[in-house]
Amino acid sequence: MSAQNIVVIGGSAAGPKAAARAKRLDATANVTLLQKAPELSMASCGYPYYIGGEFDERNQLLATPTGVVRDEAFFAAAKGVNAQVNTEVTTIDRDNKTVSCVNTVTGEKDTVPYDKLVLCTGATPRRPPIPGIELDGVRALSEMRDADKLRELRDTGEVKDVVIVGGGLIGIEVCEALAESGMNVNVVEMLSQLLTFLDWEVAKLVEKHVKSKGITVHTENGVSEFLGENGKLTGVKLNDGSVVPCDLVVVSIGVVPNATLAKEAGLEIGDFGGISVDTHMRTSDPSIYAAGDCVEIPNRITGKKAYAPYGDLANLEARVVADNMILGDTAVFPGTVNSGICKVFNLSAGSTGLSEKRAKAEGFEVVTATNASLDKPGFMGAKLLVSKMVADAKTGRILGFQCVGPGEVNRQVAEAAMTVMNGNTIFDIGVADLPYAPPFSLAIDHFITTAHILENKKAGRMAGISNADVKERIDEGTAPFILDVRAPTEFEEMRLNVGETLIPLGTLRNSLDKLPQDKDAEIVTFCKISMRGYEAQRVLEAHGWTNVKVMEGGIMAWPFKVEF
Amino acid sequence: MSAQNIVVIGGSAAGPKAAARAKRLDATANVTLLQKAPELSMASCGYPYYIGGEFDERNQLLATPTGVVRDEAFFAAAKGVNAQVNTEVTTIDRDNKTVSCVNTVTGEKDTVPYDKLVLCTGATPRRPPIPGIELDGVRALSEMRDADKLRELRDTGEVKDVVIVGGGLIGIEVCEALAESGMNVNVVEMLSQLLTFLDWEVAKLVEKHVKSKGITVHTENGVSEFLGENGKLTGVKLNDGSVVPCDLVVVSIGVVPNATLAKEAGLEIGDFGGISVDTHMRTSDPSIYAAGDCVEIPNRITGKKAYAPYGDLANLEARVVADNMILGDTAVFPGTVNSGICKVFNLSAGSTGLSEKRAKAEGFEVVTATNASLDKPGFMGAKLLVSKMVADAKTGRILGFQCVGPGEVNRQVAEAAMTVMNGNTIFDIGVADLPYAPPFSLAIDHFITTAHILENKKAGRMAGISNADVKERIDEGTAPFILDVRAPTEFEEMRLNVGETLIPLGTLRNSLDKLPQDKDAEIVTFCKISMRGYEAQRVLEAHGWTNVKVMEGGIMAWPFKVEF
Repeated sequence: MSAQNIVVIGGSAAGPKAAARAKRLDATANVTLLQKAPELSMASCGYPYYIGGEFDERNQLLATPTGVVRDEAFFAAAKGVNAQVNTEVTTIDRDNKTVSCVNTVTGEKDTVPYDKLVLCTGATPRRPPIPGIELDGVRALSEMRDADKLRELRDTGEVKDVVIVGGGLIGIEVCEALAESGMNVNVVEMLSQLLTFLDWEVAKLVEKHVKSKGITVHTENGVSEFLGENGKLTGVKLNDGSVVPCDLVVVSIGVVPNATLAKEAGLEIGDFGGISVDTHMRTSDPSIYAAGDCVEIPNRITGKKAYAPYGDLANLEARVVADNMILGDTAVFPGTVNSGICKVFNLSAGSTGLSEKRAKAEGFEVVTATNASLDKPGFMGAKLLVSKMVADAKTGRILGFQCVGPGEVNRQVAEAAMTVMNGNTIFDIGVADLPYAPPFSLAIDHFITTAHILENKKAGRMAGISNADVKERIDEGTAPFILDVRAPTEFEEMRLNVGETLIPLGTLRNSLDKLPQDKDAEIVTFCKISMRGYEAQRVLEAHGWTNVKVMEGGIMAWPFKVEF
Repeated sequence: MSAQNIVVIGGSAAGPKAAARAKRLDATANVTLLQKAPELSMASCGYPYYIGGEFDERNQLLATPTGVVRDEAFFAAAKGVNAQVNTEVTTIDRDNKTVSCVNTVTGEKDTVPYDKLVLCTGATPRRPPIPGIELDGVRALSEMRDADKLRELRDTGEVKDVVIVGGGLIGIEVCEALAESGMNVNVVEMLSQLLTFLDWEVAKLVEKHVKSKGITVHTENGVSEFLGENGKLTGVKLNDGSVVPCDLVVVSIGVVPNATLAKEAGLEIGDFGGISVDTHMRTSDPSIYAAGDCVEIPNRITGKKAYAPYGDLANLEARVVADNMILGDTAVFPGTVNSGICKVFNLSAGSTGLSEKRAKAEGFEVVTATNASLDKPGFMGAKLLVSKMVADAKTGRILGFQCVGPGEVNRQVAEAAMTVMNGNTIFDIGVADLPYAPPFSLAIDHFITTAHILENKKAGRMAGISNADVKERIDEGTAPFILDVRAPTEFEEMRLNVGETLIPLGTLRNSLDKLPQDKDAEIVTFCKISMRGYEAQRVLEAHGWTNVKVMEGGIMAWPFKVEF
């Protein structure tokens, strides 16, 4: 058998991984990597940190851990891969098994034969059809040159005011980067919250923090027009009619898969516009595989196809492609549970699985719990975590978990991702043996406590009410009796100031006369994080009250204004 | 039905949890907590950090997150639990369902009736029968008063030299605390390594770090005599005959379960001397439950009974006890996978499941992989992680994982614990969807990469050799051809200096004449972390060499001396 020709289109994340592993698995193969951009193996998730000045060496985005830039020479010498940059593939000829490409610098054309072809064509930022989008100053963050430009704007200091369109993951990362660079930042988001992988009341905690950093956040608002003079951006006009003057706009309202090449070659395309692949990451043509931001993969919880353009998945998918190309279809890619995490100034925010909103939309009957606690013992310099767990109401299977706070969110979401992938229940997690020592976690890890709270709710022992619901009732003028069971000193420091009554838990058993004497009256208890709130509920129920609820997460999870 | 009497013996971790939850589940129950020590709910895992000056307020070890000391009054008011300190239970009368106790301060005796009894009697440090152990200055760290005494010695500064007997978890935590307090610390360990939950070569990395902090570590050595003058400690004599002068000894060679009370009451005791319980945490007497450091629980991997005195498990076991006492036997405690973690100066060290040594002793045929990598992208201020994964050779099921380094060990070991509990294989983990962003992890998480390496080894694609084996061969004078494929600059900075040949990976394909021309000659490749070492192996095999191995973990995992 003569050496097989493997051609990989795309040189960012998935492409290089597929190419390098294919060559390691079959040293005789001729592996060619065709890359449209001038760079290879860009750490594109790192762009916001380069823009924001976390580091200054541009090459760090392109280099191995030992500092060698991954250019064509590197791929040839270290990986045995023939990488060609500035090389755009224009057509795939499936009958003759060739791809046609053109060098975008020299204009030179070429035709490359393949036995196996891998499409890692990535994604492109959405560009909304809004008047003025062509103005100089309206940008996105997708390619290395975008990162270069935004970094240049940081370094020259010529931009004062910036509007970020879109409050998703990339929008928020860019928001932080530019704010840290000294710009005045506005974020405009169509929906009622930032970071839609979080439920509303959790996202509001992030929004509160973002605002505390001097950022102006416009939710439930959109851009109706980009305003300019002489082709240069001067501001944006919002849907509510207001105008925000600015020198720079970064549009980050998501990405769309680059599937045109595949579509033109007659490959099957999915409902999200991504390339359809089977569990082996093989397209509708058995000689062609695909991986990364250009494909659709299954959601492991719903079983439905999803579009999940994450850098980590791109790498894992590409590894599966290489295995299947070289070793036969031995490897399966099971899909995504939508695990994600991001840094938002002093907070981290992460999630995995389904939010409550999403789970309900998918037809699940759910029970949820919110938990606010420190991430480790107070004496170890602990920080706050606020989490929400979503479980199937019948089985207790954990469908999703979200966590925000200045504390150790990273471990929590990683634990939860493992849980969701394994289909564990709240009962499994309630007795999980996790690593514990005071510098690292609480004796009962925050994630486990969240499962315990959910267990209490599912069993009907704890009746919870969300802070959003409490706030709505207050605003409607139908507030229940709200009982703060914290200590007077805590009350002095910070309080809701919504008409609540303070009765510290320790005195509650002797202060029952201060409560509504109608035993069916609705009472909502809370404390700092709502452990004492739950104790209070149990005490009141033991004394005959029948309609007592705990406001979950206590005052620490309250996303609205508090009084100091 | 009249209110039931629940009596809990022991007020440290498991006891208070069982008592408080039982009262929450049944508000009508009379719950009594009998505690021998003067304190309740001590955060005993925090003692080393109090001793070492991480914080100064002793009460933080005894307080709730909002700063309320958990004393008798607190338990009465906030928990509805009748807690009695300084109260030692002397006998259990199972026929009459009573316990006899004595107040250790007043000498007053009492008899308390129970319907359900919970034993949370904890553990006691082992005291070896070594001459001189009664000397003033020979201490342990178990009770609050031990912590008080060691903290006092820190504060007065009167101790200059200390010997820690035992290099396990507590020994190492105390070692750090006292070294940080300015004492000269010697650690004496009978075995050939510290931290026996780690395999030897991983533990050696910790030992190297401990020594770099000025600690003297004596392995494969024991104390034959504590030396003293006028009843006061002056030094220790070691098994090798050497004498280490010191003012203080802390003996930390493990703990034994406090099961005397249970034994005298005729309850079943296990092979480790702990109280036997069923999966509901019920002892051989159906009215008596037990939890915490006094019980034996199953190892979830081997199915055999184990002794696992961890603070986190104590709490979880106690919760199961409360559920079963009040709700009937509804809850099951599945046991331990031996998850643990500790801080060792600037390193963290953690593990879960079985080490290679332990797995082999349990009869498993295993395959292992060592992985050294940064914990996140280099441009994000990344730190090193060195891990070893142990999997079943037939199925690829992950049996254990250990991780040390200055990097984010916490997340890695938590992920691994979830994996081991779920019985996941290296193939499951190879396609895991974990949260990724540059501030938090690598695009392919370190844990996943470790599974990938193991997959390559299991499939026979990568032939590994441990650094310990390489070192042994060098010392024996039968060294293979050792090939360093790093860059010349890296070689200049740090090298093994064991006769290795430097051929950078990028030039390897053109330097094959520098290698042994006998294609069956044994060649061991390595680089910084051994990714390039693996690439080199694949290149050499493609050129006909048949006996090429990769030294796993590269120079970063090399636990012996390196040349700078």
